[in-house]
Amino acid sequence: MPNISVKRIEEDLFALSKFGYNKEDKGVYRQGFTDTDMAARKWLMDLFEENGLKTRMDGAGNVIGRYGEIEKPAVIIGSHLDSVPAGGIFDGTLGVMAGLECIRTIKENSINLDYPVDIIATSEEEGRFGGMLGSQAITGSITLDWLEQAKDSNGEMLKDAMAKYDLNYLDVLHAYRDKEDIKAFLELHVEQGPVLENTKKTIGVVDGISGVFKWLVRLIGKADHAGTAPMNMRSDAFLGVADFAHEIQRIIDEEGTDKSRITIGHLELKPGFPHTVPGEVDFSIVGRDLDPDVMKSLANACRRVLSSIARRHRLMFEYEEMSWLEPKYCDKNIVKMIEKKAKDRGYSYLNMPSGAGHDAQFFTDITPTGLIFVPSVGGISHAPDEWTHWIDVERGSNLLLDCLIELSTD
Amino acid sequence: MPNISVKRIEEDLFALSKFGYNKEDKGVYRQGFTDTDMAARKWLMDLFEENGLKTRMDGAGNVIGRYGEIEKPAVIIGSHLDSVPAGGIFDGTLGVMAGLECIRTIKENSINLDYPVDIIATSEEEGRFGGMLGSQAITGSITLDWLEQAKDSNGEMLKDAMAKYDLNYLDVLHAYRDKEDIKAFLELHVEQGPVLENTKKTIGVVDGISGVFKWLVRLIGKADHAGTAPMNMRSDAFLGVADFAHEIQRIIDEEGTDKSRITIGHLELKPGFPHTVPGEVDFSIVGRDLDPDVMKSLANACRRVLSSIARRHRLMFEYEEMSWLEPKYCDKNIVKMIEKKAKDRGYSYLNMPSGAGHDAQFFTDITPTGLIFVPSVGGISHAPDEWTHWIDVERGSNLLLDCLIELSTD
Repeated sequence: MPNISVKRIEEDLFALSKFGYNKEDKGVYRQGFTDTDMAARKWLMDLFEENGLKTRMDGAGNVIGRYGEIEKPAVIIGSHLDSVPAGGIFDGTLGVMAGLECIRTIKENSINLDYPVDIIATSEEEGRFGGMLGSQAITGSITLDWLEQAKDSNGEMLKDAMAKYDLNYLDVLHAYRDKEDIKAFLELHVEQGPVLENTKKTIGVVDGISGVFKWLVRLIGKADHAGTAPMNMRSDAFLGVADFAHEIQRIIDEEGTDKSRITIGHLELKPGFPHTVPGEVDFSIVGRDLDPDVMKSLANACRRVLSSIARRHRLMFEYEEMSWLEPKYCDKNIVKMIEKKAKDRGYSYLNMPSGAGHDAQFFTDITPTGLIFVPSVGGISHAPDEWTHWIDVERGSNLLLDCLIELSTD
Repeated sequence: MPNISVKRIEEDLFALSKFGYNKEDKGVYRQGFTDTDMAARKWLMDLFEENGLKTRMDGAGNVIGRYGEIEKPAVIIGSHLDSVPAGGIFDGTLGVMAGLECIRTIKENSINLDYPVDIIATSEEEGRFGGMLGSQAITGSITLDWLEQAKDSNGEMLKDAMAKYDLNYLDVLHAYRDKEDIKAFLELHVEQGPVLENTKKTIGVVDGISGVFKWLVRLIGKADHAGTAPMNMRSDAFLGVADFAHEIQRIIDEEGTDKSRITIGHLELKPGFPHTVPGEVDFSIVGRDLDPDVMKSLANACRRVLSSIARRHRLMFEYEEMSWLEPKYCDKNIVKMIEKKAKDRGYSYLNMPSGAGHDAQFFTDITPTGLIFVPSVGGISHAPDEWTHWIDVERGSNLLLDCLIELSTD
């Protein structure tokens, strides 16, 4: 059984981490279409070339290194190269560097493949401009209208940010790839959550990416002087949302699954003064599950519970559904293959959903797709102290290698 | 039984409301030491003079009109002339104008008094500079240090604001009055709450001004990705404060009285993003009661409950006591007198605490003090639609008259 060299992955990840490294907070700043991101892409293209890959950057800024000469649909492996501000050194980059290492190993072991392999480093996955530009471009879910309007939180337009690097935003639409040219997509990524560590598993075999709905909810009562308004004469909007928070676990127990999540992450009291009974509360509800029917049940339960709580506290209840994204499923045969390969290597694994979004979710629309997780220490990601033990990097990369060889041979 | 003329009070209140009236929001803008406030004081001094009062402005900007030549301790009646931004036409001003009307009625009815009466319009009660300058100056609870540092929310210094009107801030300390010179203090004020209206009473006989404590509380858990962190692996700080909110009524039921209030009016989730489990919540607790031992019991119960909730949700709990103001009590004999005079007039009344602060609270420190409430329509105050029905103004003012006569005769 061929084995990857984790030492080479380690060297590559540390070399890559220099692009955007901030000495003060020790975080990586490599947001999409910035100097550090574009320098890293240039570095990667050189590295791909050195390793004999036929390398190009597509119109969306994705870096693609082709291994193999055969004119057949390609197996694509990889992930993204950009980071969030103050991010870690594994998020995205691991999938790219492990992909390259797989090719090095295949070459060293003179393994014959029947299909070409594309190692991909997608662009702008972290959503500086509000999407996952690279994978959306390849899979055809980008519109001209969106491209012309997209801007970052500082108001900089995507098309202007691209133009700085001599990229024409219209070329994003040329990055689209015909389904017929792709055989499968496989991504290795850090979990970015605590499940594998807490369950003491090495590998997460991802069944799919959870669907997600986001509501903005408003409960309106009556602002009163906190001294003059007796407790029983108030319409305290905060007590409404506090009641709802209490019901979240019951809603999941009754309507959900162990994959369900309901979170209140944003909340604003109005007027927000210590000596004033809050007359209004605006808050977000984000719900997730891997089953669209369960998502609907969770949403219905939230609405019913909020309505009844509003009546009890003499509040008005309004909500707006800001988004509803359906779950995306990995290919069942690829899931089975990953399980089998993990067993063959003697790695412990867990079938799990991905609660976070990944490039893989767009590839599920056009090609059989697989997603492999390795543990994140403390469940931490998107932070300078994001870490994955090298032994887990090694196992995840060996598993990626085995799966890649299987997918690339008849 | 002599009766005041509510028509004259109405005319005076409307005349006074022109100082600082804003056509757009129909609110009164007469904050302490502004052009509108000082013009109103000038107008009031003229009105006092026209009514035969010996009138002066003291070093703190208080306008004082003396009725009677006798060299004895004075009965002081009145309230404040300044308003909050976008305030109403009754808050404070009612007590001043009803006071003047009492004197007019006493004169018209040739009622002999054995003590002089001071009608007072205090300065800066609404706390533009963070205190109740006028009544604190008279009662001796202002320090030189505070005067030199006090500034408003725009950063303007009190001493500079006073200097604009040729007032020297050092003269504030000359406004202090010897206890021996004061026989009693009596204030008529709108309730600024819903209790009288909801209980269908005309008169609130105030037992005292509730004590108040203010805490800033911090619960610290762990910020997690709302998708990747399973419900049972979270340390969600918001669920901690929601649990606490649920316990507030129980805490009051067990430890408090019908005068107790506990309010969460300010709250901030961190980082505050919809897709992130809140790792921290900072919020205020404001507690009130008329009994200092009850306040202590409420505070202890809050601390115990927060500690146990923090353990249950794996949170760290910290709090800081920002302020602790003891309750202040009206004079028992004056309370009894107000009750008796209300009965004599056939007015319905309710004994109640004042949850809001008033000039009267400082006078309790130095002289027997009484505070009379009349109903606020809808409990609304500090807003343009603050209103008190004229019939209630008439009854409250007649009651003030009866009490004033009683206090001013041997």
